[in-house]
Amino acid sequence: MSAGTDPSIPYKTYLAEAEIPTAWYNVRADMPKKPAPLCIPGTGQKATLDDLSHVFCTELARQELDNDTPWIPIPAPIHDFYKMYRPSPLVRAYFLERALGTPAHIYYKFEGNNTSGSHKLNSSIAQAYYAKAQGLKGVTTETGAGQWGTALAMACSFFSLDCKVYMVKVSYEQKPFRREVMRTYGAAVTPSPSDTTQVGRAILAAHPGTTGSLGCAISEAVEAAVTHEGYRYVLGSVLNQVLLHQSIIGLEAKAALDKLGVKADVIIGCAGGGSNLGGLIAPFMGQKLRGEADYRFIAVEPASCPSFTRGKYAYDFCDTGHICPLAKMYTLGSDFIPSANHAGGLRYHGMSSILSELYDEGLMEARAVEQTSVFEAAQLFARVEGTLPAPESSHAIRVAIDEALRCKRENKAENIVFGLTGTGFFDLTAYQQFNDGTMKDFIPTDADLARSLDQLPVQPDENA
Amino acid sequence: MSAGTDPSIPYKTYLAEAEIPTAWYNVRADMPKKPAPLCIPGTGQKATLDDLSHVFCTELARQELDNDTPWIPIPAPIHDFYKMYRPSPLVRAYFLERALGTPAHIYYKFEGNNTSGSHKLNSSIAQAYYAKAQGLKGVTTETGAGQWGTALAMACSFFSLDCKVYMVKVSYEQKPFRREVMRTYGAAVTPSPSDTTQVGRAILAAHPGTTGSLGCAISEAVEAAVTHEGYRYVLGSVLNQVLLHQSIIGLEAKAALDKLGVKADVIIGCAGGGSNLGGLIAPFMGQKLRGEADYRFIAVEPASCPSFTRGKYAYDFCDTGHICPLAKMYTLGSDFIPSANHAGGLRYHGMSSILSELYDEGLMEARAVEQTSVFEAAQLFARVEGTLPAPESSHAIRVAIDEALRCKRENKAENIVFGLTGTGFFDLTAYQQFNDGTMKDFIPTDADLARSLDQLPVQPDENA
Repeated sequence: MSAGTDPSIPYKTYLAEAEIPTAWYNVRADMPKKPAPLCIPGTGQKATLDDLSHVFCTELARQELDNDTPWIPIPAPIHDFYKMYRPSPLVRAYFLERALGTPAHIYYKFEGNNTSGSHKLNSSIAQAYYAKAQGLKGVTTETGAGQWGTALAMACSFFSLDCKVYMVKVSYEQKPFRREVMRTYGAAVTPSPSDTTQVGRAILAAHPGTTGSLGCAISEAVEAAVTHEGYRYVLGSVLNQVLLHQSIIGLEAKAALDKLGVKADVIIGCAGGGSNLGGLIAPFMGQKLRGEADYRFIAVEPASCPSFTRGKYAYDFCDTGHICPLAKMYTLGSDFIPSANHAGGLRYHGMSSILSELYDEGLMEARAVEQTSVFEAAQLFARVEGTLPAPESSHAIRVAIDEALRCKRENKAENIVFGLTGTGFFDLTAYQQFNDGTMKDFIPTDADLARSLDQLPVQPDENA
Repeated sequence: MSAGTDPSIPYKTYLAEAEIPTAWYNVRADMPKKPAPLCIPGTGQKATLDDLSHVFCTELARQELDNDTPWIPIPAPIHDFYKMYRPSPLVRAYFLERALGTPAHIYYKFEGNNTSGSHKLNSSIAQAYYAKAQGLKGVTTETGAGQWGTALAMACSFFSLDCKVYMVKVSYEQKPFRREVMRTYGAAVTPSPSDTTQVGRAILAAHPGTTGSLGCAISEAVEAAVTHEGYRYVLGSVLNQVLLHQSIIGLEAKAALDKLGVKADVIIGCAGGGSNLGGLIAPFMGQKLRGEADYRFIAVEPASCPSFTRGKYAYDFCDTGHICPLAKMYTLGSDFIPSANHAGGLRYHGMSSILSELYDEGLMEARAVEQTSVFEAAQLFARVEGTLPAPESSHAIRVAIDEALRCKRENKAENIVFGLTGTGFFDLTAYQQFNDGTMKDFIPTDADLARSLDQLPVQPDENA
């Protein structure tokens, strides 16, 4: 019954606390062609530090615009907080390998061992720190599935910052437990749309029965930030600053692999806005960009929200309210409403500008997978590796398994590394559907996509 | 903002995988006076290996009766499984110390970083292994809050054993998510009372609207085991064999403390049936029994179910159906129905015979705490240490905080160690009550206790 194990490679590799990276890695510094800048809707002008500082904390706006500094030191209070739940383990999936009968070696970096249940805490604590250091009273944000909201509530509680979370109304009602975690950490959670903002009141007047959307919640959170003295808006994905903070995932993973003497062949991550994938691959992509090593990178997205595989690389609105700057990215159009896929964290119409540029240059692959096959992978993983994965993370598991089966057919002992971003404790309605055999796949038609892609804004001249 | 930290003591101490103990420690071997033996109701005879083997796996029945062997080797497949989630971290609660302003040093052994969300997996994997090794088809059990059922489902899935869980009907309906985790791991979950057993049908006939009880679910699970060829019954607490397996907690905690050069002064654990507390303190108690070191041990129980602090040390039924052997223990009487405290894992009328004997000899202290003060401790802990604790575990947090505040008053830098048994992801209804300010305390009256203690069975002669 024993798994065949290699005595030189433990199941779990933990770095020592002294080995937690002391600086984030900014992959933009090594990109010959930089990601396209944020632009102001209407004028098409590049967003300046001044533009961004009205919405974001100043230091975070600076990080957003910094395409040149390769290493940005992690301030000591953030580093201290990281010690509460980091380093996260790099796990050798011996039991999954055995179940698949593959010669491949499978590793995963597990970011779910903290109360937010995901990697989101890596950036929320950084954003809360800079807000506190700037002397702010608090921050505002939106949350859909609730992982980001929870991570931000935890971070704000730690630094005694006020935290206003606009939670999509349907989630607020259907996921009361996520809401209660945020409240336990002291956050004020408002179902969106609400009557606390102008944009919320306008939407409620136009659509009295609406259960809300992420786009609307973003608009309310931004309005709340700019209309309250001492508040700024913070965001859990898509932005360059978030990928910067999330580089801690890849830096630790690389340090652990180096320690084990293992060179990854293929690195896989799920991709919604791109925060996890961008963080996981950052230092490996840096090596590739500098010509020091080669890797295959695979972004995995839901077939129901296929930004990379069926979207268009163009400037688009980041929010449905159209009040944020425009970003150039692989997008399905800001009016695209993905169907009811259970991976709430992957239901975003766009994608990180950094990853979009890397994908456009052919430095990364992308694959879209269907929900039922994702849950088949999740169930197998849970049963053999013990951990109940989040639906988002299970997209990466699906493709890691597919790659391991390819290695089996080709008889190749490749090293496969994937990001296990979180746990599925708050996703059991989805598991229940799978257990009951009532789960469906959702794939938008070409006509669906054409409709939302027709609504792209006037394209700014990015070289202006 | 930085916590005052001692550079020689990291936040988290992980042993290496090679340091996971290879044998469990049986504290009974070092007890001058052994725990009282199980007896057969009616005859009062001591239960023999043959008696127990009809209900339990033979090897587990042997462990149950073994008062002499100090070290029992952990079979390799169990040890391999342990590597998936062990060693668990020993955490220095720097941020909690800072929040309390205490000179005490607080450590906790965290057992919640696995999908069952608690320490229960340490014993379920052992019990499933012995069932498989005996060639059984499957096992049966009961579950209330669902932690044990989840842990057993995970273990059975790993060894391809059938797993039948009788889940108290009210929990089955109110905790659908726990149920779905068990189903994801392939367990068959039946709401109890059910029409699948004689005892279930009899109870349904007598009480058509009943929502069930743990006692009834135990009776159904035992009946299902003895009436199905190739099945045995397994249990998650109370029994000697369970405390044996759980000694892994204490052995790892002690190894980590020894590595850090830290000698614990006081060791604290929550106590329902005693599995966590008994496992945590085992090797330290062994030292105390052998005269090698001294420690204070504190068992923490809910004021709503105060077996140690207000119960009687006597032989009693282990289940309300009165079909299991009698155990001598601190008990509130098997008819005692604790009120609706949220720490489902601590709502048992009795207590491990081993811990009962140690408590009776004055080798341990016990303290009963009220629910609202437990959740105050839980909220503080969550906010400063980052982890959302289970209500059960929060009983230990409450007393660890009280002891740290005592150290502050007395200006003593004692080393306080407590067991953080699990996470509260499935307990958010309780947190919601606390957040809403509607949580109540429940304390049984003396008359309540007298009523159930009047029903104790005829006492066997344990020296016969």
